Amino acid sequence: MINPFFKNNGPFKIVDILNHLNLSNTDNYKSDLIYDVKDLNSAKENELTFFHSKKYSLIAAKTKASYCLTLQSLKDYLPERCKKIFVDNVLLSISQITSKFYPDAINDNFDVTVKNINEFKFKDEVQHGFNVLIGSNVTIGKNCSIGHNSIIEKNVVIGSNCSIGSNTIIRNTIINDNVSILDGCVIGKKGFGFLPNNKKNLRYPHIGIVIIGENSEIGCSSIIDRGSMSNTIIGKNTFLDNQVHVAHNNRIGDNCIIAGQVGMAGSSIIGNNVMIGGQSGISGHLKIGNNVQIGGGSGVIKNINDNTKVMGYPSKDLRQFLKDNK
Amino acid sequence: MINPFFKNNGPFKIVDILNHLNLSNTDNYKSDLIYDVKDLNSAKENELTFFHSKKYSLIAAKTKASYCLTLQSLKDYLPERCKKIFVDNVLLSISQITSKFYPDAINDNFDVTVKNINEFKFKDEVQHGFNVLIGSNVTIGKNCSIGHNSIIEKNVVIGSNCSIGSNTIIRNTIINDNVSILDGCVIGKKGFGFLPNNKKNLRYPHIGIVIIGENSEIGCSSIIDRGSMSNTIIGKNTFLDNQVHVAHNNRIGDNCIIAGQVGMAGSSIIGNNVMIGGQSGISGHLKIGNNVQIGGGSGVIKNINDNTKVMGYPSKDLRQFLKDNK
Amino acid sequence: MINPFFKNNGPFKIVDILNHLNLSNTDNYKSDLIYDVKDLNSAKENELTFFHSKKYSLIAAKTKASYCLTLQSLKDYLPERCKKIFVDNVLLSISQITSKFYPDAINDNFDVTVKNINEFKFKDEVQHGFNVLIGSNVTIGKNCSIGHNSIIEKNVVIGSNCSIGSNTIIRNTIINDNVSILDGCVIGKKGFGFLPNNKKNLRYPHIGIVIIGENSEIGCSSIIDRGSMSNTIIGKNTFLDNQVHVAHNNRIGDNCIIAGQVGMAGSSIIGNNVMIGGQSGISGHLKIGNNVQIGGGSGVIKNINDNTKVMGYPSKDLRQFLKDNK
Repeated sequence: MINPFFKNNGPFKIVDILNHLNLSNTDNYKSDLIYDVKDLNSAKENELTFFHSKKYSLIAAKTKASYCLTLQSLKDYLPERCKKIFVDNVLLSISQITSKFYPDAINDNFDVTVKNINEFKFKDEVQHGFNVLIGSNVTIGKNCSIGHNSIIEKNVVIGSNCSIGSNTIIRNTIINDNVSILDGCVIGKKGFGFLPNNKKNLRYPHIGIVIIGENSEIGCSSIIDRGSMSNTIIGKNTFLDNQVHVAHNNRIGDNCIIAGQVGMAGSSIIGNNVMIGGQSGISGHLKIGNNVQIGGGSGVIKNINDNTKVMGYPSKDLRQFLKDNK
Repeated sequence: MINPFFKNNGPFKIVDILNHLNLSNTDNYKSDLIYDVKDLNSAKENELTFFHSKKYSLIAAKTKASYCLTLQSLKDYLPERCKKIFVDNVLLSISQITSKFYPDAINDNFDVTVKNINEFKFKDEVQHGFNVLIGSNVTIGKNCSIGHNSIIEKNVVIGSNCSIGSNTIIRNTIINDNVSILDGCVIGKKGFGFLPNNKKNLRYPHIGIVIIGENSEIGCSSIIDRGSMSNTIIGKNTFLDNQVHVAHNNRIGDNCIIAGQVGMAGSSIIGNNVMIGGQSGISGHLKIGNNVQIGGGSGVIKNINDNTKVMGYPSKDLRQFLKDNK
Repeated sequence: MINPFFKNNGPFKIVDILNHLNLSNTDNYKSDLIYDVKDLNSAKENELTFFHSKKYSLIAAKTKASYCLTLQSLKDYLPERCKKIFVDNVLLSISQITSKFYPDAINDNFDVTVKNINEFKFKDEVQHGFNVLIGSNVTIGKNCSIGHNSIIEKNVVIGSNCSIGSNTIIRNTIINDNVSILDGCVIGKKGFGFLPNNKKNLRYPHIGIVIIGENSEIGCSSIIDRGSMSNTIIGKNTFLDNQVHVAHNNRIGDNCIIAGQVGMAGSSIIGNNVMIGGQSGISGHLKIGNNVQIGGGSGVIKNINDNTKVMGYPSKDLRQFLKDNK
């Protein structure tokens, strides 16, 4: 379930996509229809993917995509049946194509479709404060409350028995039952992902969403960005304290406890039953196992195995940290 | 002054409390009335307290409480006249009892009692912005201002000459004279305290409040949580910069200067004239003396004596830190 | 361009300024008019400056100011034609004089001049949400959008093609073309600058502004304080992620990438093409060169040369950091 919300403007003919990139059609690709753009792992037949770094070669070898943007130097990692399209800058090109499929997913200007909750049937079903705004394509379960000045922008599903605080903004997010989101949060905004470019950085689309599991709680002024090509996920019964920053594509497991001011850089996977002390930082693209405990203030820059306690910057085994700092 | 705001639903008979916990009444406790639930130090006659860890044994020995929830293994630390109630999980049981006394103190759903300030006498007495909301049981002194979209929920006392910014939310808080609270703060929310439990964590009540001393300033987007069984206190003439996080039960002294993005984990005591550099973190249950200076970025995990300068993660004597990092 | 917004109540006669400070006029200064108060570097003829620390002696030697508040011990560093006024506490005295020139720049009570955008011509020119408030002395370029509940207080210039999110507050700020400011930011507030004083700290005026260069982006819940005697500047095409804290007087160059939860203490100068990893802290009064890369979680307490990669707390050469932590 990568893409329930953003409107897919495809399919497009592969020749039109090549034209869009100003590429010469050396392989004489014709009118094959491309229905979607996905990452190597999710892409299926008649879909287009991208492969830009050798570190993804194992996943690339198994991709089901019909077409793949890539570099000449990487072509041999891809299956034979996957048709290659060679470009100079894979990320730039995939960004341009994704923008063609999902033009709505680039910018996050405020949602002009919202109206006051009093104009919806929700006004009787949801216990709500003053000045609550609701966008299009929003569903809200039974027995929910939404505080003053909160804005539920378009593309939000809220389960039953959920409590949304005041001054909170949510978009492009699925919230399961019994979730509390406290005051002043921003959930579902585009992530901090773009292609640096002198004079003017190029924003790439964020077509992922945020999913929050049942019984979880998100503390005040926390921010959870939606994913770029995949989703940002908070597990079940996972509690975040105040001022926590969860960047795009992170996946956090169940029963986790994440203390105040923790920051996660993006695309990391956190297991179940993980405890993270206040102000810790988790670098991008890491894998943190189950039952891990990370002491407050730690800076985690490597993967962590299951059932491990760490602390420090960079983080190391907790006993070692305590010994080194006696 | 622990409990000026939350309605105490007691007294309850001790037998009813035992029934509430599904405990067999082996000691044949009868109809003694229990008037309140407090910590070991504050509890008085006809009140109930709890004692769950040997590290509080010195305080336990002096408790004035008539009844105490505890473990069999801890009973000998308590005075003889204090009647013991043995449970398997002290914190779980005290949480259940506190919830019985103070059902309002568990959740922090938005305050449905608030109305626009224009419906109060405050509209003429307070210089106020647009869309200011005021709850029940709020008093505001002379010569105050409250910015746009701010919400003063129930149970707030604001002194004279106070300035509250815009987009700020305050509840369960006493603010003394000449205090400035800048934009986007959340003050008086329940703390990040709960009993972890697979499938569904158990929130315990927060019956403490926040108290802010005179002449103090709280920077933008700072968050100060109210206490669980005691209060969260900011002293007089203490200035907090932006994005500071003060968790439940912390007590900060007078004339302190706390720079941006500092985080305090909870239940620590900070002396007077303490300076804390930006992004420093203070672990829970610590005692930081008077006239202490903590360098920016420090992680404090031990008590600090009066008149000491520290820096580092973990923090150490400042001269040692500078020497080690020459 | 230090002072386009704050009303200068001068000029004042130098004798009146001396009286304001309760100083005896030993040098028999007369009715010379003082037109403005500036730092050593910016001050010109008929203006007053201040010089309180030997570390500014090179700049002091070149000041063009007609008068300078200083200490007896520093007088010889100043040019002969610059008339000295000796005080016990230079910062306290300059603060008092600046307050006389710029009484509006001390407090940041909410802007009582704002009105709903629907009362302005902007209502047709700007795509705007509900409950948008606009102050006096605001200009907005073509093709801009401003989200719900945002407050553009007095003294703001917004260029063309800018997107302002929801729940954001801006004052005393110049925003150039094609800038995005996301949800929940506070831009242009007074900095965390004051003279500590037992019983009651003394706030000094912040007469600087914030300037944001074209094509830049400011992430959610970020805070940028305006300068005290100079401006806080964000360069062109510089992107800040969420929850970033930029304190007063910082100057950040062009094409910088600043990740989530970074904090900058104040008065530092960051070059062009600088990348700062998440949660890093930059101490005050530093100079960070061009093309510098600072690893996540770093604590920077020294200047950094051009083209350098650093990491650690305190930060050191990246290779050294990796070697020390193998």
